[in-house]
Amino acid sequence: MRDIAQTSALDPSETEAEAPRLNRRQAAKVRTRQKVLDAARALFAERGYEPATIRDIAKGAGMSTGAVFANFQDKAELFEAVLTEDLARLGETLRAAAASESSVRGRILAALTAAYHGTLEQLPLVQAVVARSWFQPVAAEMRMREAIKPVTAVVADVVQAGVREGELRQDADVRLLSDLIYAAFLSNYRRAAYDGWNMEQLDAQLQKQVDVILAGALARQ
Amino acid sequence: MRDIAQTSALDPSETEAEAPRLNRRQAAKVRTRQKVLDAARALFAERGYEPATIRDIAKGAGMSTGAVFANFQDKAELFEAVLTEDLARLGETLRAAAASESSVRGRILAALTAAYHGTLEQLPLVQAVVARSWFQPVAAEMRMREAIKPVTAVVADVVQAGVREGELRQDADVRLLSDLIYAAFLSNYRRAAYDGWNMEQLDAQLQKQVDVILAGALARQ
Repeated sequence: MRDIAQTSALDPSETEAEAPRLNRRQAAKVRTRQKVLDAARALFAERGYEPATIRDIAKGAGMSTGAVFANFQDKAELFEAVLTEDLARLGETLRAAAASESSVRGRILAALTAAYHGTLEQLPLVQAVVARSWFQPVAAEMRMREAIKPVTAVVADVVQAGVREGELRQDADVRLLSDLIYAAFLSNYRRAAYDGWNMEQLDAQLQKQVDVILAGALARQ
Repeated sequence: MRDIAQTSALDPSETEAEAPRLNRRQAAKVRTRQKVLDAARALFAERGYEPATIRDIAKGAGMSTGAVFANFQDKAELFEAVLTEDLARLGETLRAAAASESSVRGRILAALTAAYHGTLEQLPLVQAVVARSWFQPVAAEMRMREAIKPVTAVVADVVQAGVREGELRQDADVRLLSDLIYAAFLSNYRRAAYDGWNMEQLDAQLQKQVDVILAGALARQ
């Protein structure tokens, strides 16, 4: 299931290319699953996690709740599947944004600014996801770490490349720096949620944070 | 209500010193309130937020649920009051720990290590509090920021003193550095929760994080 979801998220054409391998019944199942995911995504984005009901998701997809449950065990599994697709797609956006810059600082800021742009409209959903990340079964946490990897890997890869290419010190701790940048990036959503920060304020804050975190890691010119 | 809770948390003797000003009925009300808080604290620590019921808290305090509701509107208000007391007390512990060191780095690490030591036994509660902090009404968030201040102010004050005393650069952004350190400190609890990190691992990670964050802010010797 996960494989199908991720593949289609990364590149819809791949699913089509694989379609001939599926018989008609299997193909219908894939389409049904995707319809449920799309309806769920729309409703989660509009209402957040808690108020979105399986009944309304089914209604949005134009099918019975039974048909939804034939594809997903419960709302939590459905939510995870939506999130996995979204994060894979977001990761691609970040990677493209990072590629448009040349310095480590520029690439990180381009990527994470793109992340804010791609998610701020769904702020309640981001808040719900982070809240869950603090209090979920270990198995769910491990699945979420896997799902978020397309996003976090972009920052880690930029830092890693910075070390390899000599812009950052050879002894820089790639994981430590990446994790700190990601933690700072994430913490700013609370300012958006409670202090009404807009995109410009988030970007300005992130810029200052990244400068502080990279300060000691820059190779002496 | 809040004033009484905070005063007693900071120094129980102050409450006693004020006692003569209360008539017998008021004094009984303060004692009842404190009994409820202590029973709630024990139960929250043991079970976490969700599974702790008002019924069991009342039982723990040896009184009726009606008596509990005479003092607190609901479980959320009770939890906030417990937390406010705990954070005031924790802040004092951090301040004392910070005072035992002389360098900015040493003082920050002493304070935040003390914070881990004082909270790790109640990890599920920490997780529940942070999870809530991501998804609560703005008014609750503002009350929580006020309640956490005794803790966050310790780090901010150490950084501020470091600038004043010349250990940190004069143009160092005190708020930015303090917030980054606090965000890193907090993020490590997830490693304790999901990766089973112990105190030593948390301390070692925090040390590395603080070194990265302070690297660019240290005044050139």
